[in-house]
Amino acid sequence: MTEDLFSKQLKVFQKEIESELDRWLVFGDVPVRLAKAMRMSVKAGGKRLRPLMLVGAHKMFNGRANPLPAAVAVELVHTYSLIHDDLPAMDDSPLRRGQPTCHVAFDEATAILAGDGLLAYAFEILSQGYESDPSLAIGLMRLLAKASGPAMLVGGQMDDILLEKGTQKVSMDEIQRIEERKTGALFSATLCMGAMMSDSGRACLPQMERLGHLFGRAFQIADDVLDVIGNEELTGKPVGADARNLKPTAVDEWGLDGARVQVAEITAECMELCFSCRAPFPEFLVDLMLSMRDRVL
Amino acid sequence: MTEDLFSKQLKVFQKEIESELDRWLVFGDVPVRLAKAMRMSVKAGGKRLRPLMLVGAHKMFNGRANPLPAAVAVELVHTYSLIHDDLPAMDDSPLRRGQPTCHVAFDEATAILAGDGLLAYAFEILSQGYESDPSLAIGLMRLLAKASGPAMLVGGQMDDILLEKGTQKVSMDEIQRIEERKTGALFSATLCMGAMMSDSGRACLPQMERLGHLFGRAFQIADDVLDVIGNEELTGKPVGADARNLKPTAVDEWGLDGARVQVAEITAECMELCFSCRAPFPEFLVDLMLSMRDRVL
Repeated sequence: MTEDLFSKQLKVFQKEIESELDRWLVFGDVPVRLAKAMRMSVKAGGKRLRPLMLVGAHKMFNGRANPLPAAVAVELVHTYSLIHDDLPAMDDSPLRRGQPTCHVAFDEATAILAGDGLLAYAFEILSQGYESDPSLAIGLMRLLAKASGPAMLVGGQMDDILLEKGTQKVSMDEIQRIEERKTGALFSATLCMGAMMSDSGRACLPQMERLGHLFGRAFQIADDVLDVIGNEELTGKPVGADARNLKPTAVDEWGLDGARVQVAEITAECMELCFSCRAPFPEFLVDLMLSMRDRVL
Repeated sequence: MTEDLFSKQLKVFQKEIESELDRWLVFGDVPVRLAKAMRMSVKAGGKRLRPLMLVGAHKMFNGRANPLPAAVAVELVHTYSLIHDDLPAMDDSPLRRGQPTCHVAFDEATAILAGDGLLAYAFEILSQGYESDPSLAIGLMRLLAKASGPAMLVGGQMDDILLEKGTQKVSMDEIQRIEERKTGALFSATLCMGAMMSDSGRACLPQMERLGHLFGRAFQIADDVLDVIGNEELTGKPVGADARNLKPTAVDEWGLDGARVQVAEITAECMELCFSCRAPFPEFLVDLMLSMRDRVL
């Protein structure tokens, strides 16, 4: 895909995703304060990377079903996890992407409930959005439930907090084992959910699962790199925030250039995996992953 | 059913439910602290009313599928809501059923994550437990997601907190509108989930939904009565705890005998609804509801 074609396609998908988010975030019978907190938290979102990955995986295999409700469900789960991670009892973050976090804009109780509401609502959206195809619906739900459950997203956050509270320097291996559950698992589920919407995609679920983990790792390392080379405006969080504690970043571990090389190498592995599926339209997903790599090079 | 037969059947069902809970609460790949917090919170549970209602509705219509995974899923959602309701930012309860609450036994972060984990895990259990019947699985998920979502369980809690923080005396109508979402909606979903496991039950879902709301109301009023006539050992919470704030209880509103009459009248309505379904085996569910009524008479 040419750069121009990719950025056009990106905008089209982002617009579709935002409309679908808006559509699901209109609540008739939800307390106003709760609806506001949920909507504000979701709408403060960034590039919609996970929905784009899902739509990209769907496109790659020329899926039949509409990928958008699933893309929204994944974004709501991601948003819920950010709201709860930011809580005073957890990471205690007042800002995210330069905006006040949910418990600051509202209060702690509202933030806890907004997260809870988004998590449950994600499953409601899947059950409504894929009502006419129960086999697909149950497959989507299983993937999303597992990725957001106690072994993955929640368990990763638990271990992350235990590490943060510790007094020992943590190894990069331990950090990556946490990130695999906090980021990689949802990336994998997202790609598998998109791929699952066609027969050829269903045949490639193991590859898509592995792709999610690899891309998740590249994404995390890139995040550490951006944290150093970026500034607050670019990433929405204070530069060097990760350097203050005992958790080494990828840049601490491998140096700035070493981390960049890792991102490039892992992205190359991602490309290989993508092409190994011999899917009809891998271009968008491939370019999406390359664009992430290019941000740090 | 004779009293003896009911209490025998009750014990059999309770034993089955506990075994099924134990079976699902063994985690291989979940951080030890998180697994402990989830298990402790679930195992501190009481009579397992919701699972018993689900099993009772299943038996009433002679359902085919195994009701136990669904019964566990419902109990985990109930437990998650208790853990989060008890948090310092919400009701700030140090004790539940005479035991330290999750954030006291562990800490706030762990309690938030244990609740999150249980909610997501409930959907994972449904997707695993009913894998071979996708239509049933999706039906169960839709009911559970809706009942635990922002319009129901979470929205009810949001409004409850807003009321508690207010300085105005609240009307009984407002309280009941909250309880309908915090208790009635999950009761309805529970009964519908059990009924959904047979053709004749699926034909009676509107009645079962209404039954859940009515029984939820009777249950709440009975709870207020027990709060007055009971003692800490019996109910596990301080006598008269509800009298300290601006939320009138059913006993404040109608007096002790008036509240008892309400419980009896609503339970009678429940009986009528149950029998109107002409189901083959309504006895256990009927006796379960009568036993709740009899506790306050």
